[in-house]
Amino acid sequence: MTNKPWNLRQCVKKYSDAGIKGISIWRNVLEGQDPGEANRLLDDSPLEVVSLVRGGFFPSVEKKKRLGAIEDNLLAISQAYAFGAPLIVLVCGSDSRQSLEKSREQIKEGIIKILPEAISAGVKLAIEPLHPMYSADRSAVNTLAQANTMAEEINSEFVGVAVDVYHLWWDGNLQKEIERCGRNDKLFAFHVCDWNVPTVDFLNDRGLMGDGCINIPEIRNWVEETGFDGFNEVEIFSEKFWAMDQNDYLEKIKNAYLNFT
Amino acid sequence: MTNKPWNLRQCVKKYSDAGIKGISIWRNVLEGQDPGEANRLLDDSPLEVVSLVRGGFFPSVEKKKRLGAIEDNLLAISQAYAFGAPLIVLVCGSDSRQSLEKSREQIKEGIIKILPEAISAGVKLAIEPLHPMYSADRSAVNTLAQANTMAEEINSEFVGVAVDVYHLWWDGNLQKEIERCGRNDKLFAFHVCDWNVPTVDFLNDRGLMGDGCINIPEIRNWVEETGFDGFNEVEIFSEKFWAMDQNDYLEKIKNAYLNFT
Repeated sequence: MTNKPWNLRQCVKKYSDAGIKGISIWRNVLEGQDPGEANRLLDDSPLEVVSLVRGGFFPSVEKKKRLGAIEDNLLAISQAYAFGAPLIVLVCGSDSRQSLEKSREQIKEGIIKILPEAISAGVKLAIEPLHPMYSADRSAVNTLAQANTMAEEINSEFVGVAVDVYHLWWDGNLQKEIERCGRNDKLFAFHVCDWNVPTVDFLNDRGLMGDGCINIPEIRNWVEETGFDGFNEVEIFSEKFWAMDQNDYLEKIKNAYLNFT
Repeated sequence: MTNKPWNLRQCVKKYSDAGIKGISIWRNVLEGQDPGEANRLLDDSPLEVVSLVRGGFFPSVEKKKRLGAIEDNLLAISQAYAFGAPLIVLVCGSDSRQSLEKSREQIKEGIIKILPEAISAGVKLAIEPLHPMYSADRSAVNTLAQANTMAEEINSEFVGVAVDVYHLWWDGNLQKEIERCGRNDKLFAFHVCDWNVPTVDFLNDRGLMGDGCINIPEIRNWVEETGFDGFNEVEIFSEKFWAMDQNDYLEKIKNAYLNFT
């Protein structure tokens, strides 16, 4: 994943130098960036573009906002196409002014609306279930079971799920649901980080692998048993780590990845 | 529920004056309180004692701590007996140094160990599933499905579940699981408050009913459809509300209860 304090050029250079093989691009790093130059940066690097992060945020009680979300997701598809990203991760969204069921309906409708563009661009879409602590404002899809059901109902080889250990580690049905999406060729992405004990911020207090309580190797094993051979993507939102020297942080990530993932 | 800034005498007086019919006693208000006097306070009031809060915290990798938890739960049972509380709410606990499965095993073992004392004291035990954001440190039981399964496996009329909208509102299986515990006579308690959007603190940023996004009347309806005729208990941990004049806060609670529950 692109690294919040670094711009795209820095990320590409530093990750390549560190021997990292792939990069997922957060769209915010593309802002103010010349698309042609960004493309050249990536083409000239050994890095494989894994995904574009993020689309989604479909639900709203306001029709205008729902239409705006469709526009934004179509833009994301064109960005993914431009950068050769084969996948967009969807943080699906939620609107606390309506029921979670209604928000989930609108998520499904939104995905179905953008699907033709995604197919013609050759860009897959991954529904990422988010931890239930984000139900009210970030995602009405909160379990892998819900994401699997939605992907199966949409029933396109271009729509699957993203498994992030941070969001799903607590779920007693996780192993079963990972097997389910694997069996159906719907497991499109795998993200790792750790759950700090205690966690003090709802958004930006994720831990380095090994610092928290998630049994990451066990979950990775479930993922790999499905035949998944994609990237293990490190995604750690952390005010603490973003505040430190980012070269040292990258070293820490590498060590944590090699020893605790 | 006893109100954090007030002592037991204040709670009993204020709640009685306000026309509230029942009280659940947090054990912290019993500290430094003469048990005989506390008992007289409650006997002399029109309030029904609904439950004692809380037992639990069974799991630990350290055997000594597990044994200490059993002792503490036995003490809670004797306190409940002394105050005529027919129920203890269990915040089950979790130890992030071991798997959630292991913690759940130890919870079940702990409940089975204290059950004979609970039965002879005539005190029921309610397993309260806590929101998954507490999986690592407060409860390894995070869905009503898990609580129901555990209560059914223990299979005693003295062991059931507590449904708190704050912990469970996000769960797509909630209606089905409320029906399940109702059908099995395992629905022992119902707690209300609201989920603030955004929520800024993991523990003490609960909302007054109507301030947040939970459809409380819908969940209450599911609960009442099972035949549940116990108390609707208001439980709002909130630094914000604890900091205000507590008489005004009690007024707010009454209004929120009457209008949004």
